[in-house]
Amino acid sequence: MTSCVLVALYVNLLLCFPIRHSLSYTLSMPLLDGLFYSPSTEPFFSDAACVQSMLDFEAALANAEAKAGLIPSSASAAITANCRAELFDLNALVASAPQSANLAIPLIKQLTALVARQNAEAARFVHWGATSQDVIDTGLILQMRNALDPILSDLDSLCDALAKLANAHRNTPIVARTLLQQALPTSFGFIVAGWLDALLRHRYRLLALKSNSLVLQFGGAVGTLAALGTNGPVVARHLSEELSLPLPTAPWHSHRDRIAEIAASFGILSGSLAKIAHDLSLHMQTEIAELAEPSAPGRGGSSTMPHKQNPVACAAILAATARVPGLISTILSAMPQDHQRGLGNWHAEAPTLTEILRLSSGALHRLAVLAPNLQISTAQMRENLELTHGLIYAEAVSFALAEKLGRAAAHEKIEAACAVAIQSRRHLREVLSSQPEISANLSSSDFDSFFNPLNYLGSSSSFIDAILAENNSRKNPTQPAAKG
Amino acid sequence: MTSCVLVALYVNLLLCFPIRHSLSYTLSMPLLDGLFYSPSTEPFFSDAACVQSMLDFEAALANAEAKAGLIPSSASAAITANCRAELFDLNALVASAPQSANLAIPLIKQLTALVARQNAEAARFVHWGATSQDVIDTGLILQMRNALDPILSDLDSLCDALAKLANAHRNTPIVARTLLQQALPTSFGFIVAGWLDALLRHRYRLLALKSNSLVLQFGGAVGTLAALGTNGPVVARHLSEELSLPLPTAPWHSHRDRIAEIAASFGILSGSLAKIAHDLSLHMQTEIAELAEPSAPGRGGSSTMPHKQNPVACAAILAATARVPGLISTILSAMPQDHQRGLGNWHAEAPTLTEILRLSSGALHRLAVLAPNLQISTAQMRENLELTHGLIYAEAVSFALAEKLGRAAAHEKIEAACAVAIQSRRHLREVLSSQPEISANLSSSDFDSFFNPLNYLGSSSSFIDAILAENNSRKNPTQPAAKG
Amino acid sequence: MTSCVLVALYVNLLLCFPIRHSLSYTLSMPLLDGLFYSPSTEPFFSDAACVQSMLDFEAALANAEAKAGLIPSSASAAITANCRAELFDLNALVASAPQSANLAIPLIKQLTALVARQNAEAARFVHWGATSQDVIDTGLILQMRNALDPILSDLDSLCDALAKLANAHRNTPIVARTLLQQALPTSFGFIVAGWLDALLRHRYRLLALKSNSLVLQFGGAVGTLAALGTNGPVVARHLSEELSLPLPTAPWHSHRDRIAEIAASFGILSGSLAKIAHDLSLHMQTEIAELAEPSAPGRGGSSTMPHKQNPVACAAILAATARVPGLISTILSAMPQDHQRGLGNWHAEAPTLTEILRLSSGALHRLAVLAPNLQISTAQMRENLELTHGLIYAEAVSFALAEKLGRAAAHEKIEAACAVAIQSRRHLREVLSSQPEISANLSSSDFDSFFNPLNYLGSSSSFIDAILAENNSRKNPTQPAAKG
Amino acid sequence: MTSCVLVALYVNLLLCFPIRHSLSYTLSMPLLDGLFYSPSTEPFFSDAACVQSMLDFEAALANAEAKAGLIPSSASAAITANCRAELFDLNALVASAPQSANLAIPLIKQLTALVARQNAEAARFVHWGATSQDVIDTGLILQMRNALDPILSDLDSLCDALAKLANAHRNTPIVARTLLQQALPTSFGFIVAGWLDALLRHRYRLLALKSNSLVLQFGGAVGTLAALGTNGPVVARHLSEELSLPLPTAPWHSHRDRIAEIAASFGILSGSLAKIAHDLSLHMQTEIAELAEPSAPGRGGSSTMPHKQNPVACAAILAATARVPGLISTILSAMPQDHQRGLGNWHAEAPTLTEILRLSSGALHRLAVLAPNLQISTAQMRENLELTHGLIYAEAVSFALAEKLGRAAAHEKIEAACAVAIQSRRHLREVLSSQPEISANLSSSDFDSFFNPLNYLGSSSSFIDAILAENNSRKNPTQPAAKG
Repeated sequence: MTSCVLVALYVNLLLCFPIRHSLSYTLSMPLLDGLFYSPSTEPFFSDAACVQSMLDFEAALANAEAKAGLIPSSASAAITANCRAELFDLNALVASAPQSANLAIPLIKQLTALVARQNAEAARFVHWGATSQDVIDTGLILQMRNALDPILSDLDSLCDALAKLANAHRNTPIVARTLLQQALPTSFGFIVAGWLDALLRHRYRLLALKSNSLVLQFGGAVGTLAALGTNGPVVARHLSEELSLPLPTAPWHSHRDRIAEIAASFGILSGSLAKIAHDLSLHMQTEIAELAEPSAPGRGGSSTMPHKQNPVACAAILAATARVPGLISTILSAMPQDHQRGLGNWHAEAPTLTEILRLSSGALHRLAVLAPNLQISTAQMRENLELTHGLIYAEAVSFALAEKLGRAAAHEKIEAACAVAIQSRRHLREVLSSQPEISANLSSSDFDSFFNPLNYLGSSSSFIDAILAENNSRKNPTQPAAKG
Repeated sequence: MTSCVLVALYVNLLLCFPIRHSLSYTLSMPLLDGLFYSPSTEPFFSDAACVQSMLDFEAALANAEAKAGLIPSSASAAITANCRAELFDLNALVASAPQSANLAIPLIKQLTALVARQNAEAARFVHWGATSQDVIDTGLILQMRNALDPILSDLDSLCDALAKLANAHRNTPIVARTLLQQALPTSFGFIVAGWLDALLRHRYRLLALKSNSLVLQFGGAVGTLAALGTNGPVVARHLSEELSLPLPTAPWHSHRDRIAEIAASFGILSGSLAKIAHDLSLHMQTEIAELAEPSAPGRGGSSTMPHKQNPVACAAILAATARVPGLISTILSAMPQDHQRGLGNWHAEAPTLTEILRLSSGALHRLAVLAPNLQISTAQMRENLELTHGLIYAEAVSFALAEKLGRAAAHEKIEAACAVAIQSRRHLREVLSSQPEISANLSSSDFDSFFNPLNYLGSSSSFIDAILAENNSRKNPTQPAAKG
Repeated sequence: MTSCVLVALYVNLLLCFPIRHSLSYTLSMPLLDGLFYSPSTEPFFSDAACVQSMLDFEAALANAEAKAGLIPSSASAAITANCRAELFDLNALVASAPQSANLAIPLIKQLTALVARQNAEAARFVHWGATSQDVIDTGLILQMRNALDPILSDLDSLCDALAKLANAHRNTPIVARTLLQQALPTSFGFIVAGWLDALLRHRYRLLALKSNSLVLQFGGAVGTLAALGTNGPVVARHLSEELSLPLPTAPWHSHRDRIAEIAASFGILSGSLAKIAHDLSLHMQTEIAELAEPSAPGRGGSSTMPHKQNPVACAAILAATARVPGLISTILSAMPQDHQRGLGNWHAEAPTLTEILRLSSGALHRLAVLAPNLQISTAQMRENLELTHGLIYAEAVSFALAEKLGRAAAHEKIEAACAVAIQSRRHLREVLSSQPEISANLSSSDFDSFFNPLNYLGSSSSFIDAILAENNSRKNPTQPAAKG
Repeated sequence: MTSCVLVALYVNLLLCFPIRHSLSYTLSMPLLDGLFYSPSTEPFFSDAACVQSMLDFEAALANAEAKAGLIPSSASAAITANCRAELFDLNALVASAPQSANLAIPLIKQLTALVARQNAEAARFVHWGATSQDVIDTGLILQMRNALDPILSDLDSLCDALAKLANAHRNTPIVARTLLQQALPTSFGFIVAGWLDALLRHRYRLLALKSNSLVLQFGGAVGTLAALGTNGPVVARHLSEELSLPLPTAPWHSHRDRIAEIAASFGILSGSLAKIAHDLSLHMQTEIAELAEPSAPGRGGSSTMPHKQNPVACAAILAATARVPGLISTILSAMPQDHQRGLGNWHAEAPTLTEILRLSSGALHRLAVLAPNLQISTAQMRENLELTHGLIYAEAVSFALAEKLGRAAAHEKIEAACAVAIQSRRHLREVLSSQPEISANLSSSDFDSFFNPLNYLGSSSSFIDAILAENNSRKNPTQPAAKG
């Protein structure tokens, strides 16, 4: 060992600077919080909630150890009585955090002092056998677990709104677009059902987090629970019951796959939300105008620029979700944590992870509010189907005609007719009808059929039914969770 | 609609340039493939395998449609007979890919020509009712599904090697380190068990991909399967059976959450592999030297620099895994795909996704080869425990003494003894033994106990047992898949 | 020190597996190379080019040391004569790479053997005083430096094509769009000039790399050049001259900011290319149709789906550029390299960096080919300006009327007229003209002016001139490089 | 155009929800701000500073337009008088932000009302000719420009502290480590100089941002400055002078390469800071102990765990910098902004960019405080050089002996001696001295020389001098800015 570390013990220098907790400081960047985050989950990510979650761990630990007979019940009573965030000096925590590189050490010091004031004996049992990472990790897990319910509730609202639209518009024709080009007709209900189908998968992913990833962290200084002798497992079991958190096989201080799985699940959700908002914003372009966000007087569309109807909810959703993928890579890059506790990469996780949840939740909430209020123009959908003057139906006509004239001849005729339609800017049906060889082989009702978008819906209604059935089954708790 | 697009139809210009398929070109960067990838899975990601997977889709589609009575069985026979990669001109595919921005169009053209040579009638049923994305997505899914088995096999080997180490070294003391500082004793077996515990969770994640994410893609031009009339679902069912791929509720052309889940699962696995390799490399530092990679004559350690034993396997694992998190963010950023088929972001997925799997598999394979051959120096582990001259045990002594002298007095005595030990560079036990007040209260056997690292293993053996039981249960197929 | 490492010295185990260099393996994923990469730079990133660049370093090193009088000129002659990639067994390199975790060690071994065959004495001067990282880093720098010229050439072509369009279309009215909504008129030339302006900045960034970042790496085993005694600096100077690479202040083995700057410069370029391709693809939507990619017979637009004109070049550009941001984060995450040479993160750089350059170059080349061949429909631009029936001009009319009627009255009148125009689907000009109070205050020529998009071009022509002047000044080598 | 958008105008629905500005909400996550951010730059990123920067734009705009004769000077006086953040209701801004998806619209509304109270006529000239993005982008540029000075000041302090260490320790031997293995001796001063060299390059990068990237944004609604008639350029010039911001060639609303360059420059700086902190933390490991963070009584090292000296400043630096690479990829991914103003991706930039600066600045500040207070154990550095019992010098001895015995014989002798040294755990020098054939050829002073680490410093002192000269030249403003 080394003289260097040892000498350092007696060097008196305050290396880490306290931050002055001034007003302007604490206000840093909430200006835009309303754009990015959700009122339904923000309370779970406040500083008070963060502190309370850590205190919930300390209270539960005391109870668990009393139940196991390791500490007196008077001690656990005194400890739990003081595990209330409003008793704590948050400014002092803020000031101390840099000195210990975490919040647990100053928090436990404050808790110990509070307990000692009431019961000096009890004070020595505060945080008994636990380590900073136990309380910090479990506190974070509790915050996320608590936020999950309103998130699932927003997700359910969104699913129900989409289910309603999918059902109502299963026969509303709209043009499908691939590579940003018009392709063939589909139904607006089927488009919406596709969004819903993805969200239902996300519901299962989020639920799976509850059992697999949002679990107790409890290992003591180096994961062995050595300070509890042979009582580690029994205290851990009581603790997991107290907190209603699943008990993992073993402590997982520097094994962060569960953290990464939580992050990734929200990252993927965020991608699906972005996909929906992106589609919405494409449908809302002035030149397409099949959808619009609802407007309100005095905001959005100015009276002097009446054509301008900014899709502000889509902007907010796309902005929030655009910020997530990079954060996921941060969490993944932070996984190789040193030995039994990471230096720095562990510390980078909590703000990144909460940001991922807040942004995903913000985007989800905004979409859940938007979905039932979408302005839908079925007339414009119809108009856009006619934009190519019937050319989107040319392939189907060619196939039909092939049975009469043979494939090559049919193809040649249709190709020529398309060229005429394009050059003369006439409708393909009109051009075709005017050509005797074609009109001789295809009746007017054939034409009605070819140029009717409702004849292009294929199996979409059956797919919609299957998706709606899945949405319904989510309300039925007896359904199994596995899903393809 | 627009004159612009229409005029463009007749403009004759070869926009996309063919790449000349010269030798130097095709050799681009395999030089380092052996460092990054795995021989166990590379065959599944060759160009031939990519083409064969797409052909497997086409063959299965023909069979499914024949089974459904949509096409003659003579046609399906002719098609399947030609679905062999070795019949195809890969250079022509390479040359055509840029023109269509995908491989499916030129592949199907070649397949159609091959079939037509044998059976002109059958040729018109090639790819019947499917779209390019159906064959490309399903082909990619098949490649990944096929690669999953050797990956799971490598993972199993690795788990078994670690299980053996965890069991054998459950009483091998080693110092636990937090924030890169020595903390308290633990056992090497418990450290290894922690790695194993994470890998067992990954096993479940990878298995879950098989049922949830590695599923059939089949929707036709715009997802409605309209070209199959009302037969879409039945063909889809036959097709999924032919390919042994789960049948999803609906086509998922532009809903990429499953793709992102596959990517994320491997991304998280990769993070866990990096964590293990990072730990190994820290243990292998010259100054710690508790572990080493095996050496071989004529490589690694030069005879004139005998101290240098580069951890080349760790280097390779860390290099491969370092490349993965950024790729995950690419996949997530690519999720908002336009309408019914994405422009560009869909095209960005396949090379990114295969790279993620190849790199993860490479790291996994290398670790699976390394683990059973790790050089372990239990003597050096013991030596390192003594590096602080007993200071790592000071806290335990202080606790014990507190019961005799009271907390404050005990604390003061130990603090003073530590200072003496540090300044005089003597062992703490020696300093303590020489102080009458302390030696009066603590017996020699007390000291033996305090300074014995085996007394600090706490519940670690019980945790190891639980983890080994999980590893054993994986070999028992009757065990349920859910896992906390 | 440790028995563990020492014992390991004599353990005989081949840890790293050689990859069999079979055909299917070497063909891994060039299938899509034509979609992502550029024929103008691929030759610089072939395996042969990689090996040749390392050999160029070795040859230049021998020459520099001969010039400094450190080795005989007969030795340098023998060495340089053998520094030709075609003399080397690349398969042996591939097989050896995993054993040393780099290519330099086996390459130098082959080079030494080749030289020894001709001149045994010369063989001992191969690689004299250098370390593996010197040759690997400098080799990579040379590859990138060499690729920079064709990249700059493609960039120049692109700039010239855009400059031509910007000038030609400075008075071609088109609607400007903000948040995907029509806003006010602008000119197509000004839109193009905005793209050009960004690319001109990129030109300076790329040129700056040549002097600041693409510099020699030469430090010997640990950066001190100790093996060269006091001759380190003079050899370094000769070496930098031999290779025409700037000489840095000091070796930079584990200081990777230059590498990160190269990566970031291409990453940002890639973002600007993506922005242009994204804009193009939005203009090319069927419903907007102001632009189109050129088509060619037999590809792109099928004769039976004549409306479908897939923007395949945009797809390729967007796909390539979508893959870059994640790779930049990989390079940045790899920067904290251990001590004097990184373990793993250094090894992760080369394939990532070359991928960044290849993808950026691919996107650039494709855009340079597309730009001069863009199909431009000025008629459709005009049509789209009329899509809101004059509403995009309402604000300007309101401002003008305010000078006659006062602000409030004018605002009220225009608001009412807009509402009438919307409800009756009539043109705003027509509605306004029909209202006596308005037509009394505004003449017909006033209306002509308000509803003429050319009156909304503001300072755009002056901005275009300034940008074109910058583009011209790039061709004038006497111009200074600094640029705001 | 479309009935859908038009109908939507009259739909009355408040889509975006206001966030209640409660206490717990505004406190969200400052708990850890002290760990991640810097007191020297936080004031520039407060909400008040954000608002003030936007108001600085509005005031400068009014002055510029008055100077150009476009608005009365009484109007500019009234406007500038009200451009003070303390006059504004920030809560109202927070509440309105989601409705307009930006802060500019509600801010300008408040400003207009404030001005109108004093001078109704002046109120109409508020924000004259500008667009929301002009004020938001320029405001952000001003915030970053203002923060740059304290950042450069921290960087200068850090450079000076490192320069002092580099000079003082140029002859302090320490072992150089490659791939985490001991390699050969170097000097601690040279290691520090390598850090400094990188930071000096960063200084030039940051300075270059001032002229190239931190420039005015001013283009009006769609970039043409049309509302200013032909006066756009002159107003822009006055505005750039008022704000002391460089005037770009043209507005750059949706061309974000400058933003990306700012982000990347800080991202790369962050990587270099991480590299230094990573090295520090490796040197600080208990088993290496060459460096330590300074300690303070009552924190860091507990009295009962005196061996534990957590490197909390390194933890904080590594945590902050670990969060940056993902944010850079977010900025790069957000570059393809739609047409003339991006939907969502533009909105994602500001919080990401400020986070990048805050984290980089936090890491830099913490390192600048740490550097002059590093605890350095030169004794431990010496001890670690002896850890291999002389084996790190074996190669040099072998080279020397080769001149006497020939290469092969020398090599064989040394190899054998190394084996003996390892097996007997004796020092290599001792083993060699005891072998007659070796001691006959090498004198005792030869041995002194071989086993003296100071003889391995090569050109390091000359490199240190060159780097120190660069550091000095930075204080000399007449030096040119270009740097290799």
